[in-house]
Amino acid sequence: MSVTFPRGFRAAGTVAGMKPSSRPDLGLLVADVPASAAGLFTTNAFAAAPVRLSRARLAKGRARAVVVNSGQANAGTGARGEADARAATDEVARALGIDPEGVLACSTGVIGEPLHLSELRAAIPALVGSLTPSGGPAFAEAILTTDTRAKQAAAEAGGYRVGGCAKGVGMIAPDLQLATMLAFVTTDAPVPPEAVGRLATEALEPAFESLTVDGCTSTNDTVLMLASGAAGGKPVVPGTTPWRSLVGAVEDVAGSLVAQLADDAEGASHVAIVEVTGAATDEDARAVAKAVAGSLLVKTAVFGGDPNPGRVLQAIGASGARVDPGRVRVRIGDATVVAGGTVVPSYFAPDGARKARAALERRHVVLGIELGTGPGRSRALGVDLSYRYVEINAEYTT
Amino acid sequence: MSVTFPRGFRAAGTVAGMKPSSRPDLGLLVADVPASAAGLFTTNAFAAAPVRLSRARLAKGRARAVVVNSGQANAGTGARGEADARAATDEVARALGIDPEGVLACSTGVIGEPLHLSELRAAIPALVGSLTPSGGPAFAEAILTTDTRAKQAAAEAGGYRVGGCAKGVGMIAPDLQLATMLAFVTTDAPVPPEAVGRLATEALEPAFESLTVDGCTSTNDTVLMLASGAAGGKPVVPGTTPWRSLVGAVEDVAGSLVAQLADDAEGASHVAIVEVTGAATDEDARAVAKAVAGSLLVKTAVFGGDPNPGRVLQAIGASGARVDPGRVRVRIGDATVVAGGTVVPSYFAPDGARKARAALERRHVVLGIELGTGPGRSRALGVDLSYRYVEINAEYTT
Repeated sequence: MSVTFPRGFRAAGTVAGMKPSSRPDLGLLVADVPASAAGLFTTNAFAAAPVRLSRARLAKGRARAVVVNSGQANAGTGARGEADARAATDEVARALGIDPEGVLACSTGVIGEPLHLSELRAAIPALVGSLTPSGGPAFAEAILTTDTRAKQAAAEAGGYRVGGCAKGVGMIAPDLQLATMLAFVTTDAPVPPEAVGRLATEALEPAFESLTVDGCTSTNDTVLMLASGAAGGKPVVPGTTPWRSLVGAVEDVAGSLVAQLADDAEGASHVAIVEVTGAATDEDARAVAKAVAGSLLVKTAVFGGDPNPGRVLQAIGASGARVDPGRVRVRIGDATVVAGGTVVPSYFAPDGARKARAALERRHVVLGIELGTGPGRSRALGVDLSYRYVEINAEYTT
Repeated sequence: MSVTFPRGFRAAGTVAGMKPSSRPDLGLLVADVPASAAGLFTTNAFAAAPVRLSRARLAKGRARAVVVNSGQANAGTGARGEADARAATDEVARALGIDPEGVLACSTGVIGEPLHLSELRAAIPALVGSLTPSGGPAFAEAILTTDTRAKQAAAEAGGYRVGGCAKGVGMIAPDLQLATMLAFVTTDAPVPPEAVGRLATEALEPAFESLTVDGCTSTNDTVLMLASGAAGGKPVVPGTTPWRSLVGAVEDVAGSLVAQLADDAEGASHVAIVEVTGAATDEDARAVAKAVAGSLLVKTAVFGGDPNPGRVLQAIGASGARVDPGRVRVRIGDATVVAGGTVVPSYFAPDGARKARAALERRHVVLGIELGTGPGRSRALGVDLSYRYVEINAEYTT
């Protein structure tokens, strides 16, 4: 499974010693031939050096290898950071005997601290030597920081294989680390370079965009899509049946990875699934879904098991989306708590909140919001705000 | 002091029994003559019934009285809420013998629960009977919900008096309450109706806009400005020396109220003062200041006493403002932690974070951000994110 499930990829992971723990901290994913490749990157103005390097190198729609380190984010590191990211990919290119322009880099870890380049360089030859078509799980382990487990997924459709792995999300490790979200999705479908960007925006972006943990966009967030073409056959292009089935398989992998990320979000005891229908547009629906999933008041209410329809209304109303208050319905699990824009009178009756309260006891809490104004729909995944979240982010600081 | 410091105002507060506690829950502020009046209201699409009523009645730039209840927010209450808000102001108008169109209403409390109108009505005659020119403090007490103390301020300039009181902010009371922010600022300066709106946007809005506790805009947030004209003299209009001195006095009152609100924010152990300079525009500066003050990662870092420059860079970069990363400087208290967009190397030296860490031990923490690209500047006030915040918002539920 994982990123080496599709044909035409090899991967490996190792302990390079770039972070104080002795856990794996360096991963390498290599395509047998130059793969069609595209990326989705953080919009943070302080984008890390590896983000800027990878984004530039993907301009041609091709990549051969991705080197990922955990321990230092190589963000907020200035000109030295640029040189270090380049040096890391040069080292990989030399060991593989390929053009450095085909090597991408991702980093996750402490912001501001320079990359531990000598440890990275020293580890590359052995890492290249250990590349195998079954190395996906080792790669998936090497990219982790505060995650408690690797996130991997695979799917198959129309004769094509899709695999993926991911790490992170929104939680913070000791000292300066931000829990950067990194994800890698591979396929052996013959997607041409000019179509792979569309595959990423169409099949990956909605899933990864739907996830919000603390609303903080990391300096290093990166999602990469690589297509080796090793399955053979005719190019898979938009508007065809093979394209649609490939999109479906990529969506499955992305959806699974995102669900695994939410489930493993450190400090979270509940996952909130916010489903919005009836918005004027999909964009309005997305604004509402993300506002509700990201609201501190909703997040603490979910943590505390308090249904609190007022907080959901507040978040909907503050989302900036077009809302006709008199048409809004809200349900928590199966319990309708708002109809016609007003809290249902029975909610204030003795025991009237019982059903909604019970829905909040589940690990996965569904908040359904029907806006009643149009066909727009969207979905967001969030997590609750717990004591543990504050503890992790306030106290685990060396 | 308080809202009755300026001449031409009377106020009172009482226990009407609209909320379960026996604390004061109904306040009334009355001008001797129709005052010039303007309001700043929540942008939440679920604006409460009293917000919509007051906004409509202020179209003419005049008001005579404001009735404020705590206990029910009268939001999410549909057509009944509209009728109840109107009935409350009718009752006040009848007791005062004035036109109901001159009566404004504000509510704070549980969302969705209907206004306890019979208790309100029953209390009005005695409340009107107790109006006095020294009733400001009683009014300031009656509007409180979870606040631990009343917030009041006064200033004098150019022969004009300015007074104010406020409640709330961002913290949540039992059950459905959102801690609505309400503020009332009065002056005896003769500001004409057509200028009082500008006084509110020029002298009040920046201060109240600078405050962020949990990023959640309440359904009921309201700031009202009333000018009785009782000081006499020529109309005070924009572009004159009296106007400028009046603006200064109103800014002083607003600044004091906002500082008091931040200091009393429940669950907060630190107030973060984010000062941004060197932005392309004031608007960019404001975006950065609010992004940093509102960032969960910055808020938990401040709570935990962890200087963490990476989190500040992350928030700046994600603010959407125009930022040239290579020019950014960040200081925490007097300690420079970022220069030229990179974390200063000494920060990672043994004991290098000591000075910044010490700055975080103060109750008021100053984060200085110089963007180095233009003349834009702004300031935001935030609070930290503590266990107590989660406790208040998750557990105090019925």
